[in-house]
Amino acid sequence: MADFYTDLNCDMGESFGAYTMGNDEAIMPFISSVNIACGFHAGDPATMQMTVKAAIRHGLKIGAHPGFPDLQGFGRREMKLSATEVYNITLYQIGALSAFVKAEGSALHHVKPHGALYNMAAVNPELADAIAEAVYAANPSLILYGLSGSELIKSAERRGLNVKNEVFADRTYKQDGTLTPRSQAGALINDSKTAINQVMRMVKEGIVTSSEGLDIAIRADTICLHGDGGHALELAREISHRFKQEGIIVR
Amino acid sequence: MADFYTDLNCDMGESFGAYTMGNDEAIMPFISSVNIACGFHAGDPATMQMTVKAAIRHGLKIGAHPGFPDLQGFGRREMKLSATEVYNITLYQIGALSAFVKAEGSALHHVKPHGALYNMAAVNPELADAIAEAVYAANPSLILYGLSGSELIKSAERRGLNVKNEVFADRTYKQDGTLTPRSQAGALINDSKTAINQVMRMVKEGIVTSSEGLDIAIRADTICLHGDGGHALELAREISHRFKQEGIIVR
Amino acid sequence: MADFYTDLNCDMGESFGAYTMGNDEAIMPFISSVNIACGFHAGDPATMQMTVKAAIRHGLKIGAHPGFPDLQGFGRREMKLSATEVYNITLYQIGALSAFVKAEGSALHHVKPHGALYNMAAVNPELADAIAEAVYAANPSLILYGLSGSELIKSAERRGLNVKNEVFADRTYKQDGTLTPRSQAGALINDSKTAINQVMRMVKEGIVTSSEGLDIAIRADTICLHGDGGHALELAREISHRFKQEGIIVR
Amino acid sequence: MADFYTDLNCDMGESFGAYTMGNDEAIMPFISSVNIACGFHAGDPATMQMTVKAAIRHGLKIGAHPGFPDLQGFGRREMKLSATEVYNITLYQIGALSAFVKAEGSALHHVKPHGALYNMAAVNPELADAIAEAVYAANPSLILYGLSGSELIKSAERRGLNVKNEVFADRTYKQDGTLTPRSQAGALINDSKTAINQVMRMVKEGIVTSSEGLDIAIRADTICLHGDGGHALELAREISHRFKQEGIIVR
Repeated sequence: MADFYTDLNCDMGESFGAYTMGNDEAIMPFISSVNIACGFHAGDPATMQMTVKAAIRHGLKIGAHPGFPDLQGFGRREMKLSATEVYNITLYQIGALSAFVKAEGSALHHVKPHGALYNMAAVNPELADAIAEAVYAANPSLILYGLSGSELIKSAERRGLNVKNEVFADRTYKQDGTLTPRSQAGALINDSKTAINQVMRMVKEGIVTSSEGLDIAIRADTICLHGDGGHALELAREISHRFKQEGIIVR
Repeated sequence: MADFYTDLNCDMGESFGAYTMGNDEAIMPFISSVNIACGFHAGDPATMQMTVKAAIRHGLKIGAHPGFPDLQGFGRREMKLSATEVYNITLYQIGALSAFVKAEGSALHHVKPHGALYNMAAVNPELADAIAEAVYAANPSLILYGLSGSELIKSAERRGLNVKNEVFADRTYKQDGTLTPRSQAGALINDSKTAINQVMRMVKEGIVTSSEGLDIAIRADTICLHGDGGHALELAREISHRFKQEGIIVR
Repeated sequence: MADFYTDLNCDMGESFGAYTMGNDEAIMPFISSVNIACGFHAGDPATMQMTVKAAIRHGLKIGAHPGFPDLQGFGRREMKLSATEVYNITLYQIGALSAFVKAEGSALHHVKPHGALYNMAAVNPELADAIAEAVYAANPSLILYGLSGSELIKSAERRGLNVKNEVFADRTYKQDGTLTPRSQAGALINDSKTAINQVMRMVKEGIVTSSEGLDIAIRADTICLHGDGGHALELAREISHRFKQEGIIVR
Repeated sequence: MADFYTDLNCDMGESFGAYTMGNDEAIMPFISSVNIACGFHAGDPATMQMTVKAAIRHGLKIGAHPGFPDLQGFGRREMKLSATEVYNITLYQIGALSAFVKAEGSALHHVKPHGALYNMAAVNPELADAIAEAVYAANPSLILYGLSGSELIKSAERRGLNVKNEVFADRTYKQDGTLTPRSQAGALINDSKTAINQVMRMVKEGIVTSSEGLDIAIRADTICLHGDGGHALELAREISHRFKQEGIIVR
């Protein structure tokens, strides 16, 4: 039997000042890559440093997780920025995180946009190009993580970047391959068994059942676990366990 | 006659969003290095990009100009941050600016703290060490600009960084070599002839007359021109002219 | 001949910290009401206090000018906030400005949303209701200024608020009565004669020629002068002069 | 036996956007007044509205809790603002919170500065005067809560404001009546029995034992419970229970 490899990623470093979010260190043992907030939608310099250090201790690949400049909305509210503005805020945030990674003797591995920026870039080619351009300008060897099959993935590939098509364990999909928006009912999969089964099928078969009930093809290079939900740690453990059972190696 | 070389630097990129500050492009022809705000006390990603591009066009050495996270106070209000916090905000800002410089095909040359951070690090060894550490962590070959003879210069030298002892054309000095605080009368030299004479003496003789009226020794590796005053451009022109007359080469 | 009365309003108090915007005090003699930024898209507590004091000295009606929490974008970038969020940020900003007005012995007169919030509320009934609700909650006797004939005006009237239908001297109108977006060519009227003629016709005849070339009916209870353009002061003077000639009283 | 009355207050509404802090609703049944963050050091318009509503449901006296504009430092880092700046940020925040209180049909009862602003105003008469002036300007009938016996209390009394001398259940006192800074060991009382005994003695006898071991006189008009610690709810319950046993009425 041939080995299956996959990448489990998680958004981390989303605490801010006196505010704690997530359970970063507890989840790190179960994942292979981490996307660290860069101070715009979440995170601050101190949190970034701590999270980078912890990620290195756990041997994780480190990515920048740039978002809209909207701490109050946690980067989840759409903002109408021009492509140039998106290029600039992305480059800024990548640079800021890179400094912490480099200072700790490691190197940035990837970039994954956050929240509304991620979702808008998934369907808007102009914003997707702006992000791909910023990632390339920062370092052409960085890998761009984007929604599987999205405009962001296409832009990155056109630009000559390596990509990872991302799928979600605990989110449902619409017929067109986009995520059901968080504002709609049924956006989140709360039952971990359902979530894990969805993951297994995406990873092994490249298929997901949409919220409309039809199977659609999906490419799963990396799986996103959310770190801020109540069940985050439990889900991480269960997926990790199931992967071991099925001979899938997380790395 | 042996050549004299000096460095003329100016704080730039201090516009923010719809707000314009300074007259950056007009002054650039007269200076040799530029300190660009990094988004905390002033500046934003778009301003940083534009200023970096302009500086490269004018062949200037580019430095990061990190400040306190206090846009409303323009980084001029003291904030009691721990040494660790100062390390982290400095590293963050250096990283952010570096990304723009690198994206435009150049490399960061130096770091000069801004405003209250600059002044506090001039006299507080712990903050000075934190800044020197951050600069070193970002890149050991960066040059640290600090108030001539200050604790910041000493920390940087202890850390193994190259330094430039900075003097000011339009600020008066106290007996102990620190600047007269802006909050006090007589802090600024408004007459450009007086300012230029002070500069010439600092550069050629290594001496400045303190506000108490005594001559004190001062090392002048680089001269700061302020870019935001009404006479900034005029002063830049006049200093440049006088330097030419006296055979001092700005580079 | 019966007297004509009209209201000339101007957005002011848009400076922030070390950044100056507009020419507030010079324009104040020519207008009758002022909309003061409240610290979200522009303005800060010190600017608010100073602007309130100046407005009182000039006998102006004082309004709150709430905007999106986006200083970097000057409140001109659309943000997708829920109706509840819009209610809350509007109420917050009205309250903050009211405190300064009350502290100086006067009372808040009106509210006019700023920038993207103004434009979105002109066409989105849900956001319009949220703003009208916040104004009513703050004080039912406040007057709501909104784009002439817009959803915001309709919401305010449904809520039982007094309104002023606002028209613009230096902006062009589309066939549906909305403003040509600033992002489009021809959005601004740069020639002051054209601007003044447009104003006169709106005030006296209730008609404006759209950018498509057709006359449309428009109600002009108040005219907005922009305070931040290069010609702001000149335009204020000229409109004021023309009004005097034609017997229109600004108050 | 004559009745004893006291006021138990708690800092609340310190959540921000996606970040939750404290356990506000659970603690509200045990206290009589609440100090609500106003968006500078913590809190946001939505949190303010929710907290005001909850406070009204629980019949609590509502106070504004203004702090330094330093969300990242949670208002606990000293900032060197001028007296005028302190006046303006205080007035701004009082106004913002007042709007929510008024919109819900109630009225603001008091003001208590937060964190570093509270501590600086306790010993700096100029800042104390600025705060007292702002409270008075907002509404002369507001009560100012300040550290028992501090400069803030004195300024408020000079200004003609009613005051409440505040004591802390879970903080230790220095010989001069100021709190042991949080940065020092022994600043917090972690044992609830010790905390409650300290409270009882302050309330009934007007005496507290300083960290140097000597009894000092202290006036206790109101007792602050911290809402953000792990034991906050437990401590609130225990103090409330003990008060009932000893016939002290919280109101």
